[in-house]
Formats: sequence, C-alpha cells, structure tokens
Amino acid sequence: MASTKDTQVGASGPALATDAVLKPSVALDDAIEVSGVDFDKYSKDKPISAADLVAGMKNMGFQATNLGVACDIINEMRAWEGTHPDTGEKQKTTIFLGYTSNLISSGLRETLKYLVKHKMVSAIVTTAGGIEEDFIKCLAKTYVGDFALPGAELRDKGLNRIGNLLVPNDNYVKFEEWIIPIYDQMLKEQEEAAEKRLGAGCDVNDAESPAWWTPSKLIARLGKEINDEDSVYYWAWKNDIPVFCPAITDGSLGDMLFFHTYKASPRQLRLDIVADIRKINSLAMTAPRAGMIILGGGIIKHHICNACLMRNGADYAVYINTGQEFDGSDAGARPDEAVSWGKIRADAKKIKIYADVTLVFPLIVAATFASGN
Amino acid sequence: MASTKDTQVGASGPALATDAVLKPSVALDDAIEVSGVDFDKYSKDKPISAADLVAGMKNMGFQATNLGVACDIINEMRAWEGTHPDTGEKQKTTIFLGYTSNLISSGLRETLKYLVKHKMVSAIVTTAGGIEEDFIKCLAKTYVGDFALPGAELRDKGLNRIGNLLVPNDNYVKFEEWIIPIYDQMLKEQEEAAEKRLGAGCDVNDAESPAWWTPSKLIARLGKEINDEDSVYYWAWKNDIPVFCPAITDGSLGDMLFFHTYKASPRQLRLDIVADIRKINSLAMTAPRAGMIILGGGIIKHHICNACLMRNGADYAVYINTGQEFDGSDAGARPDEAVSWGKIRADAKKIKIYADVTLVFPLIVAATFASGN
Amino acid sequence: MASTKDTQVGASGPALATDAVLKPSVALDDAIEVSGVDFDKYSKDKPISAADLVAGMKNMGFQATNLGVACDIINEMRAWEGTHPDTGEKQKTTIFLGYTSNLISSGLRETLKYLVKHKMVSAIVTTAGGIEEDFIKCLAKTYVGDFALPGAELRDKGLNRIGNLLVPNDNYVKFEEWIIPIYDQMLKEQEEAAEKRLGAGCDVNDAESPAWWTPSKLIARLGKEINDEDSVYYWAWKNDIPVFCPAITDGSLGDMLFFHTYKASPRQLRLDIVADIRKINSLAMTAPRAGMIILGGGIIKHHICNACLMRNGADYAVYINTGQEFDGSDAGARPDEAVSWGKIRADAKKIKIYADVTLVFPLIVAATFASGN
Amino acid sequence: MASTKDTQVGASGPALATDAVLKPSVALDDAIEVSGVDFDKYSKDKPISAADLVAGMKNMGFQATNLGVACDIINEMRAWEGTHPDTGEKQKTTIFLGYTSNLISSGLRETLKYLVKHKMVSAIVTTAGGIEEDFIKCLAKTYVGDFALPGAELRDKGLNRIGNLLVPNDNYVKFEEWIIPIYDQMLKEQEEAAEKRLGAGCDVNDAESPAWWTPSKLIARLGKEINDEDSVYYWAWKNDIPVFCPAITDGSLGDMLFFHTYKASPRQLRLDIVADIRKINSLAMTAPRAGMIILGGGIIKHHICNACLMRNGADYAVYINTGQEFDGSDAGARPDEAVSWGKIRADAKKIKIYADVTLVFPLIVAATFASGN
Repeated sequence: MASTKDTQVGASGPALATDAVLKPSVALDDAIEVSGVDFDKYSKDKPISAADLVAGMKNMGFQATNLGVACDIINEMRAWEGTHPDTGEKQKTTIFLGYTSNLISSGLRETLKYLVKHKMVSAIVTTAGGIEEDFIKCLAKTYVGDFALPGAELRDKGLNRIGNLLVPNDNYVKFEEWIIPIYDQMLKEQEEAAEKRLGAGCDVNDAESPAWWTPSKLIARLGKEINDEDSVYYWAWKNDIPVFCPAITDGSLGDMLFFHTYKASPRQLRLDIVADIRKINSLAMTAPRAGMIILGGGIIKHHICNACLMRNGADYAVYINTGQEFDGSDAGARPDEAVSWGKIRADAKKIKIYADVTLVFPLIVAATFASGN
Repeated sequence: MASTKDTQVGASGPALATDAVLKPSVALDDAIEVSGVDFDKYSKDKPISAADLVAGMKNMGFQATNLGVACDIINEMRAWEGTHPDTGEKQKTTIFLGYTSNLISSGLRETLKYLVKHKMVSAIVTTAGGIEEDFIKCLAKTYVGDFALPGAELRDKGLNRIGNLLVPNDNYVKFEEWIIPIYDQMLKEQEEAAEKRLGAGCDVNDAESPAWWTPSKLIARLGKEINDEDSVYYWAWKNDIPVFCPAITDGSLGDMLFFHTYKASPRQLRLDIVADIRKINSLAMTAPRAGMIILGGGIIKHHICNACLMRNGADYAVYINTGQEFDGSDAGARPDEAVSWGKIRADAKKIKIYADVTLVFPLIVAATFASGN
Repeated sequence: MASTKDTQVGASGPALATDAVLKPSVALDDAIEVSGVDFDKYSKDKPISAADLVAGMKNMGFQATNLGVACDIINEMRAWEGTHPDTGEKQKTTIFLGYTSNLISSGLRETLKYLVKHKMVSAIVTTAGGIEEDFIKCLAKTYVGDFALPGAELRDKGLNRIGNLLVPNDNYVKFEEWIIPIYDQMLKEQEEAAEKRLGAGCDVNDAESPAWWTPSKLIARLGKEINDEDSVYYWAWKNDIPVFCPAITDGSLGDMLFFHTYKASPRQLRLDIVADIRKINSLAMTAPRAGMIILGGGIIKHHICNACLMRNGADYAVYINTGQEFDGSDAGARPDEAVSWGKIRADAKKIKIYADVTLVFPLIVAATFASGN
Repeated sequence: MASTKDTQVGASGPALATDAVLKPSVALDDAIEVSGVDFDKYSKDKPISAADLVAGMKNMGFQATNLGVACDIINEMRAWEGTHPDTGEKQKTTIFLGYTSNLISSGLRETLKYLVKHKMVSAIVTTAGGIEEDFIKCLAKTYVGDFALPGAELRDKGLNRIGNLLVPNDNYVKFEEWIIPIYDQMLKEQEEAAEKRLGAGCDVNDAESPAWWTPSKLIARLGKEINDEDSVYYWAWKNDIPVFCPAITDGSLGDMLFFHTYKASPRQLRLDIVADIRKINSLAMTAPRAGMIILGGGIIKHHICNACLMRNGADYAVYINTGQEFDGSDAGARPDEAVSWGKIRADAKKIKIYADVTLVFPLIVAATFASGN
C-alpha cells in the first residue's frame, strides 16, 4: 500500500513537500533573539548574582521568560509613584499579596515575613491554614519529610503530612492551649460590647460595633497576642497591614472555634464576613494603582481578583501556580480570563508563571524586593 | 571513546546486561490480568451501556482503573445500611458532595441537580460562584465559547469567560435586581429578631437566634426564593439538604452584599461563619458512616475533609481533580495525605481520579446513581 | 489604614464598583447554551447509551465539550469520501493513528486492536514498547498493580512497574526466547540478499533491496511470526497497515538486538531508518485527505505531524494527552502550534482533549468507530 | 436535619472530635526543621549568591527541597573518583545528559553548550530537533514570541511557533542549503566504502565498516562541518562526546533526508540504528559509575534509563520535567518506577524536580557545574 502510494509521488520529486517545508517567511528584524546565560563570564571568584541570572533567563523562552517578565512587573509596581489629585499626597501602588496555606507551612514563610516586616505589601489574602500554621510554628516545629510516606503509619504516629513536610499533631495540642484563652477573652469583649449597646439602646447592627468580630480583626488580634518577630501576622499587626481570610473557620482555627462553642454554650463567638468584604473592596477601590501577586490558586486568587473588579481591574498582575485552564477552574485560569471580567485591566502588565511557588519565588524576591534597588 | 569502552565489554558477551535484563521474577498468579473492552461484542443494535463500559475499563490500568474503582466505592457507599444501636433506626451513609464553582457554570449542573433532587447526597460544600451561578442560570443563559477568546475584546462586549464558557455581564445585572430586595427583607428580619430579643432582654449571643444569618441559612433562603425546579439549591432547600459555603462573600453574592452595605448604611446584614462550622462538624460527627465525593480542589475539598476529621475519618472517599501533589497543595494531595491527618480512615475505600470532572462524572453517574440499581 | 480608605469611597456609594460589576453586555443570541445530561430521561430499563452520553456532554463545557467535538471530527474523517481526479477511484481519508507504549501495556490494547483488525486506520506510529509489549502479551500476562508500590521491593521480585501495571520480568525472558531465532533468520536473509547482489554486481545502496531491514519491515515480520489474533501487529500485517517506529531500538527489542550483535559478531543486523521516513512521508503526500488521531505525546505525536507537513497539513486532528504547552514541549503543544508549522491546515477540524487516554478513548470509540454507523 | 444531629453530639461535648484532632504524636527530634532564606542577611552591597539561594531553598519543602537535593546529587556525581581495579587508572562518573528538542530552541542551549564545551558530561541523548536546531541557530536567529499567537496568521507569515518562541521558516531554507551538499558527500563516502569492500570481497555486514552511517556518526560529522563555537555539537565532536538520537529522521534532518532520496535516487543514504544501540549500551556497561541528568521526557528519558539497565542501574539520577505519573506514561514516571526495572539502583541517589527545565536548570548549573568547585 505505502509503496504504491510512494510511486504516486511522481518522478519529478516531492514538490508538494518542498513547497510546504521551504515556505518563505517575513523578516522579524526588531524581534528579540532567543539567548541564554553565558556561564563562561562567571567564576568561583565572580559568582553570578540572582539579578544577573534572572536577566539571562528573560530571553531564554518558555517559563524562564515569564519569570523575567514577572520580575520586571514587580519592579515596576514597586517603582510607581503618583500624586493624589486633591491632597497632593504621594501615592504608591497598593500591592495585594495572596498565598495558599502550604506556603506558610513551607520555608517560604520566612520570605513572606520579610515582605510584611518591611511593609513591601499593602494587604494579604490567605486561607485558614495560611493563618494558623504561622502561629503554630511559633509554638513548635514543622519538619522536612517525603511525599511517599504512608498515611496509615503516619496517623499511628500522630504525624500529619503536607506534601513532603510533616507537622506533629502535638503542635495542634499546643495551639489549642494557646488559642482557647484568647477566644474566651474575645467572647468576653463581644458580650461587653453588646451589653454596652443594650444599655445605651444602640443598634446591634451598627457596622462599627466592636461587638462584631471579623476574620481580619481576629487575625490582627492573634498577631498582637503571639508577640513573636518570626510571625508573619505579628508584623502584619505591627505594620497595620490587613489580612483577609473569608473562610477562616476552614482549618484548625475553625476546629478550635467548634470546640469553643461547647465550652462557651449557650454563648458563641461570632465572625461576620460581610464587614470584611466591604473592607477589602474599599481598599481596592481607593487604590491609586493596584498590583496583585498571587501565589497558588483557589479562593486566595479569586478573592484578590474579585476585589480588583471593584476598581475596574488591577494595573499589575503576577500569578504563580501549577493550575491549568483546561478544566475551566478559576485556579488554572490565565490572566487573560480575568481581563474578560474586568478584574485585570486590558492594558495591565500581567504574567503567569507555571511552577511550584517554592521553586521560583525565592529567586524572584532576590531579584526584586530584596535586590536593594 | 565509546568504541574503546565497547571493547571492554569483553568477548564473552554482555553477561552483566543479560543478567540485569533477564532477571527472574516471582509468580503473580492471583493478581488481576490487564484487560480491556471487546467492542466486537457490541453492535448498532446492541450498543454498549455505560455500566459495561466502566466494567471493561476497570482492569485497563491507569485512570481507567481508578474510574472503575470510584464507581465501586460510590455503589458501596450507596448500598451500606446500618442500624442505630440505641434507637434501632435504619441508617444510611452520610454523603458529602463538594464541587467547585465552574462545575455549576458548566452543564454538569444538571447532573448535580439530579443528585440533589433525588436526595442522593446528604450535604453539599461549594464556593460562592457555585451558589450564585445556579441562581443566575435561572435568570439568564450561559454559553459555550472558546478557551482562546481574547480577554480585552470580551471585556468590551461585556462577556465574561470561564474556561470555554461565556457569561454575559447582563446576567449579573439581572442577578442584582433579583437579590437586592431579598437582602432588604433579610436585613429587616435580622433587625426584628434583634429588637425582639432586646425587648425580652435575651442574649444576642444565643446560637439559635434568628438574628444571626449564616451562609447555609442564606443559601436555603435563596433556594426557596428562586422557586425553580432547574435550580440545585431549590431542591436542596426542598429536600432539607444543608449547603455550606464559608467564603460566600467571595463572588457576585459578596459584590451584592458590598453594594447593599451602602444601601442599608448604617445598618448591615451579618453572616456568621462560626455557627456553620458547628453545623457541618456536627453532621460529620453524628454520621453512622461518612462518604466524600469531591469534585475539584481548594476549599471545598479541605472543608469536607476537615469535617470528617471530627469523626476520625471518612469511610469512603472519591476525589476527582487535576491537581498534583508536587507543590504541596491541599488541592493536589492524594487521599493518602488525608489518611495521615485522620480525615480519611486508614481502612477506608478511597481513590483519586486525575481528570477534568466534566470528562468523567457523567459516565460515573450513569454507572452508579443513575444506573437504576 | 483600610478604614480610612473605606471612608474615601464616598457617601454616594461605590459607583466605580457598580459600573465595573454591572457593565452591560452584547447579545449572544445565536450562541449555544450550556447544557448537560438529563438523567431523569433514563432508567434501569432504558439505560443511557455511549452516543447519548457523548451528545449530552458536548455542550457541557470544558473537556466534555472537547470530547464531543473529538467524536464529531472522528465521525467526519470516517465519513469523508472522494474521487480520484485521474483514476475515478473512490477515496477515503488516510487516518494516522499514533499511541505511546504504555497504551499497549494497558487494556486499551484491545481497543487499538479492534481498530486495526477492522481496517479503521491507515497507518500507525508508536514507540518500541508499543511494539514489543503487544507481542509479549501474547507470551505472558501483564497485571493490575498500584502506582505506590515501592521500586526496590519490586526489583527484588523481578516485577517491573508501568504506572499502576506490573510486568513480570519473566515475560522478557520469554520474549528473548521467541525473538532471537527470528533475528537469526532475519540476519541470514540480510546476508543472502547481500551475497546475491554481490554475485550480480548490483548496488548495495539500492533502495528496494531486501538486504535492508527497516523498523516497519521488522514490525510486519514480527506480526506475521506471532500469528495470534490478539496481537495488534498480527492484524496490521494481515491488513497491510504500515507501522512506523523510528526509534525501535529504544526498548526490549533493542536490548535483544544488542545481545544479538554479540551472538552474531562480526555480522550484524541492520535497521535503516531513511527508507521509513520516505515511506511515511510518501503516504502523507499521496493521501487524498489526512486525519490524525494521536494518543499521548513525544515522538509519536511529532512524527505524524511532521509527515503531514509534507502535504501542507492534515485535514483533521484529534490529540488526547496530558501535556501542557507552558514548557514549550512538542508533547504539550496545542493543535494551533502545528498550524503555524503547516502540519495542520488552517481550516482543519482540530481539537485536543486534556486527559489520560484510558479515561476517554473507550467512550470515544464507543460513540464513533464502534457505534455501527 | 443538621440541628437534630447536632443535638446528638451530646451535652458532654465533642469528645470524638477532640480525640481525633488532639491525638498525641511521637517525637521527631532528629528530623530537619523546615526553614527558608533570610533575606535580611543580604543587601545591595552583599547580594545573595546562587549557591546560598539553593542552600536556603533545600529545607524549604516541596520542589525547593527537590532542587536542593538535585544540586547535591549533581555535585556528588561530579566529585566521585574511583580507581580501575586492573589498570589502576583514575575513574570518573559517566554522566549521561538527555534533553528534548525545545531546550535547544530555547536559550538553555548556551547552558548545554557550556557543559559540553567543558567536558562536564560524557554522552548526550536528544531528539532530531535537539540536533538540527543547534545547527540552524548557527545559520539564522530564533526569536522570543508569545504562546497565544494565532497559528493561521503565523503560517501565512512563515513563522513557526515553539511555545513562546518563533522560528522563521527561512531558517529551514538555509538549513537545506547547508546540509544537502553534506548529504551528497556522505552518500559518496558510503558508496566508496561499499565498493572498496566489494573489491576486497569483504563482509558488508561488518560492524566497523565506514559504509554504515549511524545517527551518532552523522551528528559528529555535522558538528565538525558546522565549525562554529556556538554549536553544542561542534564541541561534542571536538571533545569526542557521543551524541545519540535514534529517531534522527523525525524532524528537519529527516525532511532533508527524504528530499535527498529523490535527488540521489536510486541510490540512498542509510542510517543504521543497531550499531548505536550497541554503542550507548556498551558505554553504560563499562561506566565505573553512571549518572543521569534528564531534562524533559519521552524517548530521551527512556533511552538513557534503558542503557543504564544494561549495567543494572544508574548510581545517580536527576529528572526535571513536567510529566505526571497518573497516565502511566514513561515521561511522567517517578525515579522509583525506574528502580523496579533495574534502570536505577535501589541505593542510588535520585530525585525528580517537577518543573519546566528553563525555570530551574540555570540556577542548578550556577550552583553546581559553574560554581567553580
């Protein structure tokens, strides 16, 4: 069969094929040539710096290029300065930093703390684990393990696995001992505020009432209570950087709230999430410029994007995650999907790096926030 | 170089290699042989059924095997029957169904509605979009688009992209018109309940107080208000199936709550999430057996697993998602990671299918819930 | 900080936000509405067929839509009929089927055999394992195992793992016993042909010389030798369907060729790959229409695409694999990348399904090749 | 429903839950604590080095840990020294480097060239594109583009897309002009050698005969012909480092061979792949120690692993790719799967980094091969 067809190609040779293969092309004179790092320029005495490495990667193609672009965008959002049209005050980009729980469990926590300690970000969005694991690490250690450790054996030993990390269950016992008295005190304050208002006949639905705890108020309170310079949220409290976590009950903090409802019954701590959506949306609306740095997917990604919709889109966006768009998940959506929603402006600087955050964010921070520029 | 080394292999031949390649093996007599579907058994007049297809896939290997196992687990969780040790009442598995927002946007909504309408699940966990898009679809249509449509053009046209789907922005205008009067009424009820208690001098912290809205109460109310048999949450309300969504402000429902705070100021609707964590955890603790069917990752996965920790682990677990474990995310974690935490029992039946849910869940439902068995 | 900014939103309310959120949209009247399967239409006595399931998935969105489109494309490539402009002969689409080795190890082999047995494809491209594992399965069994079985223990037992499959090493011992005599005979034929030509003074570089074995000739010979109706390549030989495998030495077939060089030394079997590139390219060039069904990535994907470049692009293309484009790999490239190269025509019907092949190809075959239409 | 069940939890509180949540754990005193980079230690005047960055990442968890481990393994394979038991000669690890075609298209080519130029690797395995694109870059430029550029427009302009790179089609025209005369000369040499043997009556099946071209001989010849210090294969030829590419016809090199068969007809260049499998396997068998550095998946990964099976397993293995094991592909298989086959020793140092190679290999090379140690 094939040999017969071969004959049909014709004695004149494969003109169809040569035309297809050797099709001429337009000139691309002003495009950037692909290039890489020349390690011959460096030596033991003259090692390559993080910034030089990133510069060498930028025209390499694939995700190396995206990493280079991400550094440019972050440097640009940091460099921007404006002037308030009415007050004449100097303005900076409002930077929203989002990250998933596992990154606080990992050693990236130190990098995140560095950003918060030095007021390099304006607001944080994370999940429950992203809050509690920071405090737990102030009470006890998390260890390096292995992705393949068998779950049943670990459960017998009371060791909880997070990827290739291990968190001893005793850490949660210590967390419970630390947090329950704080919850007791918070409930007392909630009741006192409510009573005060009852006495004054004031409206329990007052938005500014101290009787209403919210996730962001809880996190700030815990940041103050932990009083530990290793804590991300100690610095967030200290530096007045709001931390949003709408589903803060979804983790050990929630387990402890659950236990506390029995201890406090029939009284109950309340966490209102409506006040926090007003708070984060207002922050986005009043930002002179808005930048997003989103590490991971899920609610932390959507929540920052949704807030930026309130201002008709962020001006800068850097996504780093391993999600893919093919399943239609928000986690895997490219920045361009957010453009269709008005969450990122059409003319914004935006990029997604497809990678585990721990692989690339240290290098990015070295070449941006921590570069000294 | 190679040819020199080649000579070193020796005239006696490659004994090292043959020993390695031809190493003997143990017998595997009672293992299951890999096999597939024999399409010669079927014809136009005798088409293959979904159940036969799944049966043929089960011993195929790779994810086909995982799909077969998932169907077995679902059938087993549906078939289990127990007797309450005290009351003698008949017991069934408490089935927690979780899914991400995009699945409600997709045509899988009809499949999810089928499960809720026929009381085939006991509780639902989803995200804000997973709630609001169900109601929005009762008001206006969602369309099939393309993953590659450019964001800026879509924004100009007011078309929001979700993967390869398009939601016209007018749908959200209609949603706003529908929901704001409901929020008004809910605020009125919140105030009346508070006033009643003020008059009676009762405790505003009372857990059972109608003054406290929660995400699950809001969803049930909206399910009742929509009054449409195409709605998943109409059926959830009708069938008294609780729906949990701790971060319900993270979406259009939250946008509307945000707008409503201005309309209602200084009054404000409140959504307490502490009562809901008590509610879902209690449901897990009192389940005679617990099964999890988790479609997608993120908070919906963690929230069900966390609830099942309260009972020292689920008895059955089916995960379907595209996440990978290598980045240490909870979304990508295998069921065995949840075993280490006590969220799934060591002896539980458990499986993960690595796939976009829309590709496999219709076939799974055809071979389980909708098989008529 | 946030509360200050909140104040800045203004008493008039969040007009910026409402404008962004409630932006009007164009009408999408002729677009397809997202919809799903209505399982209420089916029952135990009236089960849903594969074709109905696929039809119901097509407008579901995400990969379900892609699966529906893939079935349409396959049905269209099967249905196309043309007439040769010169000879008037009836023409059919030349269908290139490519698959990776692991699919032959899996139970999908039965499905692939079905396609070859019934002459539903025109040519095959696979890798070495995709050839040898078919023959090995005629000699001994492959078993269902588990992805998590520890490698060191398996090596001790002589069990080779392929994902969640196990191949006892004895299978390769049996394979060696079967194939070495065939190699002996092939070498004998190679020498006889060469001697004959030497005697006749003819050119050893003659393209048609039987002295030159090629991968495709070797595979056809083995298909004939195995003489087993369970074998894919038995049917390929029987039905004169060429099978291409340019790197056929990269597997057990190559290990055995390696051993054979010692046995036969100083003589040596030769496998020329130049003749095969001429053969597959000629097949593509003379195809009246060309369709590609590519299951998996790597060389099997590139080789079919490259052949179709010789005809300035395939007319139909269905990719199914788990690769992603972000790393610039050919394996992960979308069909649109192949359009830029001229490997797929700009106006071709093309789709990629992001999935493990075993999950979706049985359903696709049920709704297309095996539907009886 | 939930409230009823809630009551069943009992007045005594959620003992079941507290027991599960607060389960005690064993001590993990000698495990490594998770930690990260302390950017406060560095400044503009004291920037962090690549080696310090990698050291700080090693105990971070997730893929950062795997990157740290990969650097340790590479440094160890480089440091190993042995003594030949018979000759007393000093021995070094035989390092097999494999990479896919796209990495030569990317700017990683410069990094790969650095390794070959400085004789840091012992053998190379790549695919056809991985060969030809190196030569083509000596003739014309490759450019940085964008993943989302539409294929049909690019085809019109004669621009071929590889991920976010663009290769003008004129580059292939230049390649054709360069290579066809070389093919002519190689055919001439093939014929001369054959004639010489015919005259001498020698065996055309002689393994050492210059009449038999192989992929590795072709690559060395082209490396010599290009005579350009920017070329990876110039250095491979210069440094006598064998390059294996069993499917070398699968790309532009094969297109040109195809065209050449018409030009040369009835004569034909021949590329025998049996001699090369003997060559690479012999190299593995005689290696005192064997290390694998495999960048990407597909045949380049399998081919190196298969060669190392001939010596009962490699001693060191570093995989970097984006493949996943769930589809049973060899590309996505973890190192532990290769252990089951005897391709990696049970006691080998081995790791896989899940990442696009361009993101991590520059940093790895900076901290290992190019560190000056």
